[in-house]
Amino acid sequence: MPEFFNVRSPSQAFDDLRPHISAITECEITPTKSALGRVIADEIRSPEDLPSFPKSSMDGFSVRARDTFGASESLPALLEVVADIPTGSSSDVELSVAEAAVAYTGGMLAGNADAVVMIERTQPADETSIEVLRPVAPGENVVHAGEDVRAGDALFGPGHTVRPQDIGGLLALGITEIPVLRKTRVAIVSTGDELVPPEDKPPPGNIRDINTYTIAARVAQCGAEPVIIGLVPDEYEPQLQAARDGIRTADALIFSAGSSLSTRDMTADVFNQLGEPGVLLHGISIKPGKPTIVAVADGKPLFGLPGNPVSALVVFDLLVAPTIHL
Amino acid sequence: MPEFFNVRSPSQAFDDLRPHISAITECEITPTKSALGRVIADEIRSPEDLPSFPKSSMDGFSVRARDTFGASESLPALLEVVADIPTGSSSDVELSVAEAAVAYTGGMLAGNADAVVMIERTQPADETSIEVLRPVAPGENVVHAGEDVRAGDALFGPGHTVRPQDIGGLLALGITEIPVLRKTRVAIVSTGDELVPPEDKPPPGNIRDINTYTIAARVAQCGAEPVIIGLVPDEYEPQLQAARDGIRTADALIFSAGSSLSTRDMTADVFNQLGEPGVLLHGISIKPGKPTIVAVADGKPLFGLPGNPVSALVVFDLLVAPTIHL
Repeated sequence: MPEFFNVRSPSQAFDDLRPHISAITECEITPTKSALGRVIADEIRSPEDLPSFPKSSMDGFSVRARDTFGASESLPALLEVVADIPTGSSSDVELSVAEAAVAYTGGMLAGNADAVVMIERTQPADETSIEVLRPVAPGENVVHAGEDVRAGDALFGPGHTVRPQDIGGLLALGITEIPVLRKTRVAIVSTGDELVPPEDKPPPGNIRDINTYTIAARVAQCGAEPVIIGLVPDEYEPQLQAARDGIRTADALIFSAGSSLSTRDMTADVFNQLGEPGVLLHGISIKPGKPTIVAVADGKPLFGLPGNPVSALVVFDLLVAPTIHL
Repeated sequence: MPEFFNVRSPSQAFDDLRPHISAITECEITPTKSALGRVIADEIRSPEDLPSFPKSSMDGFSVRARDTFGASESLPALLEVVADIPTGSSSDVELSVAEAAVAYTGGMLAGNADAVVMIERTQPADETSIEVLRPVAPGENVVHAGEDVRAGDALFGPGHTVRPQDIGGLLALGITEIPVLRKTRVAIVSTGDELVPPEDKPPPGNIRDINTYTIAARVAQCGAEPVIIGLVPDEYEPQLQAARDGIRTADALIFSAGSSLSTRDMTADVFNQLGEPGVLLHGISIKPGKPTIVAVADGKPLFGLPGNPVSALVVFDLLVAPTIHL
């Protein structure tokens, strides 16, 4: 009876695997709006200033600050209101001495205004004039062009996972498409003469295949794309064919069941046919999960997981998930 | 100048809202395979036993345990191997005295066998016989029918969120469709004369709408479905129309911007037109996020979030997310 003589710990197993494989670097362009959870592939720099124009941060009046210097409740500055610049409008009005323009939160200032007086700090003088009750300093209540982001600023580097607020930041700058890493594709093969699809009523002695779907769900949770190859019996040729289909279409391959040492267990033999260096280790020092195979074929990781659904998920979390997250 | 005189804390705001709204109870049937993250709507009971037949948990021989009683290395029990029952096969063989059948992990036992002897505890005697070196107790190395789950057992109750392992457990029992709660639909309206779609180059004084997309991404992260109604200007009729479109198609409505107190801010008026009881509170005691409106129209929550993107996300997390998760 063969036995596992050279078991490795899960971290040793990962260390054995790591030098043979590399993270996905292939890039694809995706709409920013639907990029939630994707991983950015290249540095993204801002094409423009944000805000793109000096904005009022208050409702009030845009003014030349120096026209308010010395103003007080007892001796207010009298300014004539010469324009009203609604939010979303632009204006080419320029203020002369002692003039002001109505300003709105998020709206533009008059061309040569350098500050905004909050409406609470003013009172109407007559139909067209206001009294300013306190001075403002240049720049007060103004968001300058480029204050949030300057054209050319680096926004995100490679490896950053896109969050809701990142989508907003990118769209604010007109960046409607971004370079993201292609999702890792993970092929899944379930082996066993006793398996039938979950839709079928198993004949006596048979059970439904479930590992395909638990593993596919975990792959998706890891941000990767499951590629379901299907069910194969405990026969060498169909398994080899399924494995070849898997590594042709995917970046990694998972076999469930067939990873132990009986005559039915041919995963190791199959993996050794797929490419160099083949099986790196057979058996890890955990329970459940001992009968696990880790292999590499031409840079693609291959995992032989135990058929027991609990063992399969345990080993998935210890070895497959960290590989997907490289 | 109007002011916020009756601000409420975020938890008070949620307490004000809670009695007026109810969680989604509408149920839909979804394929189990694609139910990851969905919320189960009704109790699910098992239609059958799992396993459905007594299974060997080892490679070895199924036996009648009493034929091994007293066996030892020095005085082994001699059993004749009368059948081989591969995994995935069934057999109607019945064992007579001192007979055994080859058994495989996950495979069936002979009809009247009540235990399995591990292959390591046997040695070949001749071509058709084995010696059993240690006794087995009845039930040893056997997974009984129904040992994991019995027909009629409750598997999941309402409110459970489906995980990968749940998909496997359901499929193992042939449950290929399950009742889940319909996803909460959240309508999103972005208001402001200064807004243009993110694809457009904003004219001077304008900015790109980003709240629609940050909020939509957060809604999706909460397991709900964003319904993007679109951009509307700071005009009452278009806003009322957009709000009506929103609550007709969705379970909750979010307005971004227009929630403060200036003349441009008409969200509160719009919300009061949509149904009873209308606006519950205007202003919450946080910064950023103070100019927030919470309203209800005929059992549907309505949120007026500040236009500032940071404020909008803060208030979303404090008030909208918990409402979605009811």
